[in-house]
Amino acid sequence: MQKIVRINTRSDEIRTQDCSEDELRWGGRNFIAKVLVREVPPTCDPLGRRSKFILATGLLGDTTLATSGRLSIGGKSPLTGGVKESNVGGEAGRMLARIGIRGLILEDAPDDVAPRVLYVSEGKITLSTEPDLKGMEVSSTFELLRKRFGDAHGLICIGPAGDFRLHGASVAVQDAGGSQTRYAGRGGLGAVLGSKSIKALVIDGKIGAPAPLYDPDMMRDLAREFARILMEDPKTENRHVYGTPAVLGLCNELGILPTRNFSSGQFEKAIYIDGEAVKELIDVRGGESRRGLPCMKGCVIRCSNVFAGPEGGKTVGSLQYENIALLGSNLDIGDLDEIAELNRLCNEMGLDAIEAGAALGVAMEAGVLPFGNAVGAKQILAQVGQGTPLGKIIGSGVCITGKVFGVRRVPAVRGQAIPAYDPRGLKGIGVTYVTSPMGADHTAGNALETVHQLNPLSRDGQVEISRRLQLRAAILDTMGLCLFVRPAFVKQPDLFSRMLKARYGWNWTLEDVLEMGSRCLEDEHRFNELAGVSEDFCEIPEFMRSEPLPPRNTVFDLSLEQMKNIWREPHPKGVF
Amino acid sequence: MQKIVRINTRSDEIRTQDCSEDELRWGGRNFIAKVLVREVPPTCDPLGRRSKFILATGLLGDTTLATSGRLSIGGKSPLTGGVKESNVGGEAGRMLARIGIRGLILEDAPDDVAPRVLYVSEGKITLSTEPDLKGMEVSSTFELLRKRFGDAHGLICIGPAGDFRLHGASVAVQDAGGSQTRYAGRGGLGAVLGSKSIKALVIDGKIGAPAPLYDPDMMRDLAREFARILMEDPKTENRHVYGTPAVLGLCNELGILPTRNFSSGQFEKAIYIDGEAVKELIDVRGGESRRGLPCMKGCVIRCSNVFAGPEGGKTVGSLQYENIALLGSNLDIGDLDEIAELNRLCNEMGLDAIEAGAALGVAMEAGVLPFGNAVGAKQILAQVGQGTPLGKIIGSGVCITGKVFGVRRVPAVRGQAIPAYDPRGLKGIGVTYVTSPMGADHTAGNALETVHQLNPLSRDGQVEISRRLQLRAAILDTMGLCLFVRPAFVKQPDLFSRMLKARYGWNWTLEDVLEMGSRCLEDEHRFNELAGVSEDFCEIPEFMRSEPLPPRNTVFDLSLEQMKNIWREPHPKGVF
Repeated sequence: MQKIVRINTRSDEIRTQDCSEDELRWGGRNFIAKVLVREVPPTCDPLGRRSKFILATGLLGDTTLATSGRLSIGGKSPLTGGVKESNVGGEAGRMLARIGIRGLILEDAPDDVAPRVLYVSEGKITLSTEPDLKGMEVSSTFELLRKRFGDAHGLICIGPAGDFRLHGASVAVQDAGGSQTRYAGRGGLGAVLGSKSIKALVIDGKIGAPAPLYDPDMMRDLAREFARILMEDPKTENRHVYGTPAVLGLCNELGILPTRNFSSGQFEKAIYIDGEAVKELIDVRGGESRRGLPCMKGCVIRCSNVFAGPEGGKTVGSLQYENIALLGSNLDIGDLDEIAELNRLCNEMGLDAIEAGAALGVAMEAGVLPFGNAVGAKQILAQVGQGTPLGKIIGSGVCITGKVFGVRRVPAVRGQAIPAYDPRGLKGIGVTYVTSPMGADHTAGNALETVHQLNPLSRDGQVEISRRLQLRAAILDTMGLCLFVRPAFVKQPDLFSRMLKARYGWNWTLEDVLEMGSRCLEDEHRFNELAGVSEDFCEIPEFMRSEPLPPRNTVFDLSLEQMKNIWREPHPKGVF
Repeated sequence: MQKIVRINTRSDEIRTQDCSEDELRWGGRNFIAKVLVREVPPTCDPLGRRSKFILATGLLGDTTLATSGRLSIGGKSPLTGGVKESNVGGEAGRMLARIGIRGLILEDAPDDVAPRVLYVSEGKITLSTEPDLKGMEVSSTFELLRKRFGDAHGLICIGPAGDFRLHGASVAVQDAGGSQTRYAGRGGLGAVLGSKSIKALVIDGKIGAPAPLYDPDMMRDLAREFARILMEDPKTENRHVYGTPAVLGLCNELGILPTRNFSSGQFEKAIYIDGEAVKELIDVRGGESRRGLPCMKGCVIRCSNVFAGPEGGKTVGSLQYENIALLGSNLDIGDLDEIAELNRLCNEMGLDAIEAGAALGVAMEAGVLPFGNAVGAKQILAQVGQGTPLGKIIGSGVCITGKVFGVRRVPAVRGQAIPAYDPRGLKGIGVTYVTSPMGADHTAGNALETVHQLNPLSRDGQVEISRRLQLRAAILDTMGLCLFVRPAFVKQPDLFSRMLKARYGWNWTLEDVLEMGSRCLEDEHRFNELAGVSEDFCEIPEFMRSEPLPPRNTVFDLSLEQMKNIWREPHPKGVF
């Protein structure tokens, strides 16, 4: 039976309940939406006592389906003031699902107490105080946890940024091996975890039987079919070889690569930091370098890598497109080793690299340091851990940085930094930034995949495209699947229904699945409306409507009225 | 004829138009409300190109009625995100009114350019660039302006805080003599002026004939009657002797004096900083010390003072209750010389002393410096002008300070610091903080005057009291009158109608006047609703609902639902 665990972080009381029939139908992102609308006062202080921190496993989280073990992390975002779900790969999600936990909810908040570690195993949950962990960087924290608890655990923690409750704080997730660390970066959820004075969670990976499947044979066949379709897709090979940096060249070509605080969409040094460059350096350097890695067992897409320095020692794993863009071209830094080092520092601080990169870009525009100054940028990121005022400003994200330094050109929607796709050159993603409950988050509905079907500079069709992408994202995030599995659902739209049948015995049609995704988005919107952060109040940044973006020299020109129609129609048919 | 002047701060185009009949009926605060709802997009960046900075004179601003020359300064607040009007005494308002200017509107915004000075005379308005003024403190700026333009001008400027566009920036106003400087402190309007790259305005005081009165005899009689009623009121004598610090003892007694970041309502050292102490020090020290000063010619209340240091040289003029509380008890500082010096530094930086004091209190709670550390507080305020990261954080106000330093106990409503009346012990003002379009601003409806009629700890009657006070404030702020003239309108409720008759020949009843006040509040509310900062989203701070305030140990316990009813009923009859 799937369970919901509630931990009162002030009284330390722990309660475990079986999921009701309704709750069993909530998973991942949808679970978070449901808990927020039912239990969290929309206007509460995101870091206060009435706020909650939520972990949720996907509907398919305990199966062997490729990519199915993603872990949803959520709550009310200190950046956006609205709902936030950020999901990560790695093994922790599947471990939690195998223990039978659908949702883990941290409630209330203590006054200042020493950091604590929450240990979660089958039928055993304990909370221990670990004063030594205060302010500790992420890799040291994981190392200490492995020493304390042994290997074969799913580890989740925050860095100093989360300890300090900085709004740009991320949540880090690591597996037994330790070579890969995944980040639930967006939305400042690390600050929410920090506000509960929980430094880390340790998920027991030794216990936890495979899920009790409704139809094991059907699931086995489905898992094979799913993997086969994914393997056959040409994008899979591309991702395997180049990882997510594969798209940097395309974004540069389209003129949507954030460059010098979003003042250009092309970067003169793009070829030094693109997918090809990442691949070559990894291949040439050897040492700890790796590419084509899976972020969880059984994944056939394997888009991860480990990027090593000139001496062969690991700098960061994985090095991803968005981080390269925000910490590279956006700061006028065209050197992958510098970028990887900046990324490593963000990771150690437990800071979202997108938010931090955007904040550094704004600081550069303000003259705090010159564009291109990698040494200065590294010093500032190191200051996050030291708790200096400047470190805390940057760690608070791009909007606070813009306000403190009096900058008008702040690339953010709904309080959150715009990721590595300038909406002036890719208008569909601009619609997502404005209308998605998640704010400026590329994973909520990225129109990049549509540029060969639809002119990204045209206003036509962008709202409809964003709507389909947002709905698909909501469904995948609820299932616990990766966004990269799209090809399978294009070929076999009934796959969701069959997967849910094999796992639970449910007779859901594709329409039922789409309906579930729509309801999830509706709940999220409702929460944001009541929190005062709907699209009515949180528009595309003014400079993106008035300042043409070189080299295409376009502005973002979809009207708010046009974009808001997105939620006024019934959900689309044949979404994939 | 009354005029409206518009200056495009990007193109430097200047347009002057006669007021329409409608516009002639707008004055002061109401003028600002009307311009905002008609012309400013509610969700615009307050410091961006679509925002406007507005000066407006009151309906009675060009008469000789006591206190009638107050100047309304307004726009969209960077702190609250909503409407803000902040009005000041001094002579600049009357000078502007005598030139025949009802409203002066600064539109658009340049990219970074050198600071400029706007010179306003009858039929002559010029804009000059003054690079030397960049980052200059307030008193030096006024000195330079007097040298450049000669005496007998009304001077308005911002300090470094406004130049840096810090959200806590105020607007300073000074007269020919220079001994008194008044501040439009709340709402961060100095940042709005700074965003237009206007460092100062110089209002010609030599030109400007008395207003063309509809009935000069009637006005002369009214002015005498008005002054006589004010003089006869016992509160006037009290204000004359002690100034606004008179209420510190009462607030301490009631247990609503902010102490150590609003953790207590009584301060052990209150007797060292109360009205009596201020009076005694002024009397004993002599030198430049003064009390019982008028802030504008013809005022019979004369609540202002000049506070001098031990050597007799002026420290600050005027030293007011709210600043003593926020920079004194709130920081655990019980020494008037230290408090006056902190106040002087806020003034030099062009920083709202309430906002800055609250921000320092939160910084002390965060451990940035210990409570009671006046030396440290002075160093931080000095850093505002130096532009250090810490100076900029504090200058950005209490909410950003709370976010950057991860503090949960932040005394603010709608993004703006709560002034010197803790709502847990004076519940009527809590209703004002939440429901007034101005956010946490005591001048929007201060329930302190009602404590002898209504138990300030009871929930009963507080909403109705706040409603009457808010309506009265809106009317007085529109007329250009000081809030301290209340006694006259209690005795002679028809005074408004008669004053408007004598000035304009209008036949307004008291009902018409109340209606005007109601419409002003409605417009302001409408703007805030469309900006997403209505009371639905901006509640009393959570800690004030859960943490009892010593020594009365009460929490704020009026429900939001109860408070929101305030705007659902027709406007009250017999408001005064």
